[in-house]
Amino acid sequence: MTSPVARNNMTGVVIGDPAGVGPEVVVKALCAGGLAPDTRHLLIGSASVISRALETCGLDASIKTVAHAGEVEDTVGVLHVLDPEGLPAEAFPLGADSAAAGDAVANWMDIAIGLAREGTIDALVMAPISSGSFKLAGQRSRTVSPVVGESYLLIFSGALRVAHLTDHVPLASVSGLITADQVKKALVQLDAAMRSWGMEPRRIGVSGFNAHANGPEDREQIAPGVERARALGVDASLPQSPDAVFRHCIEGRYDMVLAMYHDQGHIAVKTWGFSGNCVLVLGPPYLFLSVAHGTAYDIVGTGKSDPAMLHCALKTASLLARGQGIGAE
Amino acid sequence: MTSPVARNNMTGVVIGDPAGVGPEVVVKALCAGGLAPDTRHLLIGSASVISRALETCGLDASIKTVAHAGEVEDTVGVLHVLDPEGLPAEAFPLGADSAAAGDAVANWMDIAIGLAREGTIDALVMAPISSGSFKLAGQRSRTVSPVVGESYLLIFSGALRVAHLTDHVPLASVSGLITADQVKKALVQLDAAMRSWGMEPRRIGVSGFNAHANGPEDREQIAPGVERARALGVDASLPQSPDAVFRHCIEGRYDMVLAMYHDQGHIAVKTWGFSGNCVLVLGPPYLFLSVAHGTAYDIVGTGKSDPAMLHCALKTASLLARGQGIGAE
Repeated sequence: MTSPVARNNMTGVVIGDPAGVGPEVVVKALCAGGLAPDTRHLLIGSASVISRALETCGLDASIKTVAHAGEVEDTVGVLHVLDPEGLPAEAFPLGADSAAAGDAVANWMDIAIGLAREGTIDALVMAPISSGSFKLAGQRSRTVSPVVGESYLLIFSGALRVAHLTDHVPLASVSGLITADQVKKALVQLDAAMRSWGMEPRRIGVSGFNAHANGPEDREQIAPGVERARALGVDASLPQSPDAVFRHCIEGRYDMVLAMYHDQGHIAVKTWGFSGNCVLVLGPPYLFLSVAHGTAYDIVGTGKSDPAMLHCALKTASLLARGQGIGAE
Repeated sequence: MTSPVARNNMTGVVIGDPAGVGPEVVVKALCAGGLAPDTRHLLIGSASVISRALETCGLDASIKTVAHAGEVEDTVGVLHVLDPEGLPAEAFPLGADSAAAGDAVANWMDIAIGLAREGTIDALVMAPISSGSFKLAGQRSRTVSPVVGESYLLIFSGALRVAHLTDHVPLASVSGLITADQVKKALVQLDAAMRSWGMEPRRIGVSGFNAHANGPEDREQIAPGVERARALGVDASLPQSPDAVFRHCIEGRYDMVLAMYHDQGHIAVKTWGFSGNCVLVLGPPYLFLSVAHGTAYDIVGTGKSDPAMLHCALKTASLLARGQGIGAE
C-alpha cells in the first residue's frame, strides 16, 4: 500500500461535486500559479461546469477538452479537461445534492483511479465531493476504508503533519482498536511512504492515547508497537503526551506525528489555524490527496471560496510524486 | 462552589516547591510589573528560599517578613513574606524531591487556604509544586478533587478559555462519565463563576465527545444536558465538532469552551502555542489559580525559567477577584 513514485509529471484533478465549490477552488488554484512549473494537470469532470466556475470567479483561462491524457500540454492559461459525458452545467443546480451529481462524480473518480493505477497520472487530487449526492446515487466511497490498518488519513499543515491510526469510529471504541500490531503496521507504512516521497529525516512522534501518555494502552500496546517498528529501522518515538507532541512537531522535533484517533490530530491542526492544509489518504496504491473542507453550498456561486487548501493539495501532490519531500506551504 | 468576589485587594502566593522554579517565577513575575497596580501580594513560604531565587535571577527586590497579612503594604520593590517556619534554603537542595519540601509546601498551602476561606486574601495563586515531594511526605492534594463534578480545571490562554468536564481519568472511561446531569451541572457552575468574575457575555461553546459531535454521547447525554442548562438561563451551544469549537472560541464566537476530557482542551491550548496561559480550579470555595508548567528541575537555579504563566495567574487572579472579567494577556 505504499504510494509509488511515478514520474509522468501529470496530476489528475477530479473537479468535485459540480454543485459545490470544488470546480471554483480548482480553477482558482490552477490560475493562481505557484505550482511546480512542469507538472501538467488533467481535470476530470464537466467542461461546462468548469466554464461556469471560471465565470463565477472572474477568471479568463481557456478550456481545452481532451480525449485522452496524452493530449495534455503544459500551457499557461489553458485548462485541459477530460469530460467523459459532456454534461451541461444546468444539469447540476448550485448548492443542492442530487443523484445526477453523485453518479457523475463517481464516474469521474473511477476514470481518475484507472489513470492513477496505470501510472498515467502520478497523483490524484480530489476537490470536495458531497456524501449526500453519493447517497442519493447509491454510490460508496472509492478511496477511504473504514477498516483500521487499511487506510490512514494524513493532514499536512505547514510544519505540522499528522497521520491518524483510526478515523471515524466512536471514541469509546478506539481503546480496543489500538494494538501493538496496528501501531507497528502504521509506523512501517508511514515510514515507507515518507521514504518514497523523498522525506529525510523521517522522525515520527507517536502520540499516546491517554493524558500524559500515562495509561494501559500507552504502556501495553503503543510502546511495544513502537519497539517493533524500531527493530525494523523506523525512527519513531515512544508514546508522547498528546498535549505536547503536536507542538513539538511544529517546532521541528518530528517530521510527522502518528495520532491515535481523529480528534487528536484534527483539534491540533484546526486550532493551530494554519490555513493552507491538505489531506492525503495512505492506503490506495497511488498518491491520493484532497482537502479538509466540504462543498460549502452556502457560498457556492459567490466567488468567495478560498483555494488555499486545494492549492496545497496540488503543490504537495507534485512534490511527493517527484520524491521531493513535503514543502512547508 | 462558586468563587465569591472578595475585595480585600490582596492575593496570596504560595511560592511552590522550594527545590523547583516556583520561587524564581514568583519573584520574576512580581518584579516585572504589569500587574493590577493596587493589588497587594502576600508570599507564603521560606524567605530564605525567596532570597536564593532573587539571587539566581539577578533581581534586587528587598524582602520583608510579616507576622500576619495586615502588615502587607503596596510597596514597589518589596516582597512581603509570611514565613511560618523560617526554614533555610539549604534545607531544600535545588532539583530534588524531598519529604521536607512536601511537608513545607503542604503547610504553606494550608495557611493560604485558611486565609482564602476567611477572605483575608481574595485569591490564592500556587507556583509549581512537586507531586514527588508530596508523595515522599505522605501529603495529598489540597485543591483538586478527582471526582467528576467536584472540581473543574480551567485554562485561560488569551482568547481561548477552556473548562474540562473530566480531567485525569483513562480516556476509555470518559464515555461512561458523561451524563446529562454532569453536563448541566458543569454549565451552571461555569456560568455562575463567569458571572461572579464580571464576564459579559458568557457564551459557552460545548464540545462534543466524538468526531464531528456525531455519536451516542453527543446526542443522548451532552445535548440534553445543554437543554437543561439553557432552561436555567445559561448561554450554551449544542455539542459542537471538537475540531472546530476551540478555533471558534479564539475567533470570538464563544467566551469559554466546555471540553469533555483532558486532551481535548489541552491539545487545543498547547498546540495553539499562546505562552501566557494559566489555570484555575473551579471547586474550592475561593479563587484558586496556578500554572500549567512543573518544577522544571532541569533548569532550576540557572535563571532561565519563564515567568509568563505565573504572571498570567497573578494578573488574572486580580481581575477575577475584582469582578473585572478576564483579560486577554
